[in-house]
Amino acid sequence: MTLILSNDDVEKLLTMPDCIAALEEAYVEMAEGRGISRQRSDCITPTTYSDDAIYGLKSMDGVVPKLGVGAIRINSDIVTNPLVGNTRRRVKIPAAPNDRYVGLVLLFSTHNGEPLAIFPDGVLQRMRVGATNGLGVKYMARQNAETLAILGSGWQAETQLTAACSVRDIKSIRCYSPNTENREAFSARMSETLGIPVTPAAQPEDAVVGADIVMCGSNSLDPIFFQKWVEPGMHLSSIKKPEIEPAAIRAAQKVVVHTHDTSPILVVAKGANFRENTKEAGWNAANQLDFKSFPTLPQLIAGYVKGRESDEEVTCFLNNLGLGYQFAAAGSVIYKRAMEQNVGHALPTDWFTETVHP
Amino acid sequence: MTLILSNDDVEKLLTMPDCIAALEEAYVEMAEGRGISRQRSDCITPTTYSDDAIYGLKSMDGVVPKLGVGAIRINSDIVTNPLVGNTRRRVKIPAAPNDRYVGLVLLFSTHNGEPLAIFPDGVLQRMRVGATNGLGVKYMARQNAETLAILGSGWQAETQLTAACSVRDIKSIRCYSPNTENREAFSARMSETLGIPVTPAAQPEDAVVGADIVMCGSNSLDPIFFQKWVEPGMHLSSIKKPEIEPAAIRAAQKVVVHTHDTSPILVVAKGANFRENTKEAGWNAANQLDFKSFPTLPQLIAGYVKGRESDEEVTCFLNNLGLGYQFAAAGSVIYKRAMEQNVGHALPTDWFTETVHP
Repeated sequence: MTLILSNDDVEKLLTMPDCIAALEEAYVEMAEGRGISRQRSDCITPTTYSDDAIYGLKSMDGVVPKLGVGAIRINSDIVTNPLVGNTRRRVKIPAAPNDRYVGLVLLFSTHNGEPLAIFPDGVLQRMRVGATNGLGVKYMARQNAETLAILGSGWQAETQLTAACSVRDIKSIRCYSPNTENREAFSARMSETLGIPVTPAAQPEDAVVGADIVMCGSNSLDPIFFQKWVEPGMHLSSIKKPEIEPAAIRAAQKVVVHTHDTSPILVVAKGANFRENTKEAGWNAANQLDFKSFPTLPQLIAGYVKGRESDEEVTCFLNNLGLGYQFAAAGSVIYKRAMEQNVGHALPTDWFTETVHP
Repeated sequence: MTLILSNDDVEKLLTMPDCIAALEEAYVEMAEGRGISRQRSDCITPTTYSDDAIYGLKSMDGVVPKLGVGAIRINSDIVTNPLVGNTRRRVKIPAAPNDRYVGLVLLFSTHNGEPLAIFPDGVLQRMRVGATNGLGVKYMARQNAETLAILGSGWQAETQLTAACSVRDIKSIRCYSPNTENREAFSARMSETLGIPVTPAAQPEDAVVGADIVMCGSNSLDPIFFQKWVEPGMHLSSIKKPEIEPAAIRAAQKVVVHTHDTSPILVVAKGANFRENTKEAGWNAANQLDFKSFPTLPQLIAGYVKGRESDEEVTCFLNNLGLGYQFAAAGSVIYKRAMEQNVGHALPTDWFTETVHP
């Protein structure tokens, strides 16, 4: 049978520690060349949805033979690029029936090829980002790190905190995000979820000063953390290229990136009203850094490069680009737990296989 | 609702003329830059299935805004490379439960992103190859072409004939393939299917001599059609790079290829017992041709280059590489017909969409 799972199922089945452990094992496989990933591709066209919107069909693949799975993650997006304040934001529209988004993970067995499961990507998408930056914290932050600043109060910020708290004994968290209401609501909610005091900060400086770990978890296309805020012993963490000012990255003694993969393969149709992220000032600045000159997280975890070597070092982990590989690694845990716990709609595997030679 | 269709459904829903018409329209879109395709990618790893087998996760995407669809085609294969006679063959193993293959097409709407349908790729895979070479015949063979030679008697050969007979008034067909039993059974079956006499030939020369159209539809990794057999006015057609000897291709006045896409993106894991096709002598020879120097089928159909200009010219169409784009174009017809005829398992679209931002 092939399992159809929901985001609720995924949320119940996959814990952050499980997700971190699966990625950790998979990254060793990747560093050794035994696990592989295919760079994301974005096909961009016009859409009849609206003149200023685009349609995007995006995919990324990865295979982790040790975990017995391959995965492909697919997004079928309607996207607009409104100007919010002075900043251009990329906004996905839930345009599918019942106002829903479209993102899917298909999980296959490397043992016999069979389709094991199909599930939406939303919950796993943020968990794998969190888990990846959590591994950055695990391998780079001070062992005794206790205070954490989070810049951002959206859905990415939440899993950043969950992940960091899974790998360090965090005692207090300060949250800054530009909207007062958002940061207060987020802080209240996360205090309860984590059982750790999360305090809203009126200015970013108030959040980051004295923090052992600073995590950026925003949707900004411009820098939100600057060199002037860097303190000895800090661990800096970012979920996308432009969040940390390049000068702040250069101020770190140890910088590790998620992957040496370059930007996605981009295929754009004539007439698509498409703005490349890289055209934004923040991305431009970030791209002046040579990401390939930094070691990768898999290399760090597999022991090919050293992490932090003293309590005074500034360390920095840049989650520069996501990988389909992460969906395979975490997907293997989701599938295993779903089978154990009898969760999901079980459809006949024959519906997704064939007798005709493909 | 999202439709789950079977190969039987696809076979009933999509006629060859419909498939040819959809591709024809889509190729114009592609030539104009309004339709786009993402190069195939192959992720290759070891598998526990057997020591000499590999696991392959392959994907290709395409979007045809004019037809309102994007598609991704995924293959999850167990593959061996046995030596059959003197020739190395790539053999897919139906290793999934109930001895089945795994190939899927997912079809999405460019209007709102929704997942429209999921169906196996097997029937469409061969129909789109046939339809593509059928378009080669339509735009390049002599208008009065009546006799056709087919080299091959397998599953690809069948749709090659169906396609050619959809675009020309073919009166007789001769079939050569090395195995007597196969070519006789194929000829008998296709005579009945097409209502046109299909005669088995004991030697390839007997099949091709005097033929207006010669179609290669084999699984050979070495040339099966040679320069010495070229006659004035012939149209040559091939479904993969090595089938036609490069000297025979050079003997044609007009050569058109399917695509300027190069070989697939290939990611191979350490330990995978992988033999690249391109290492075979036939592929090596074929790759000495500069495929990018030839115009493409979309350019031909859109009128950017000329097809045949006289009855004496030798023309040649090389279907050098498949495209995810074809699955989108033909998929749009399959979906439309399925909705009209109420075919397939209709699952709630909510199962394949989400409220969580991906």
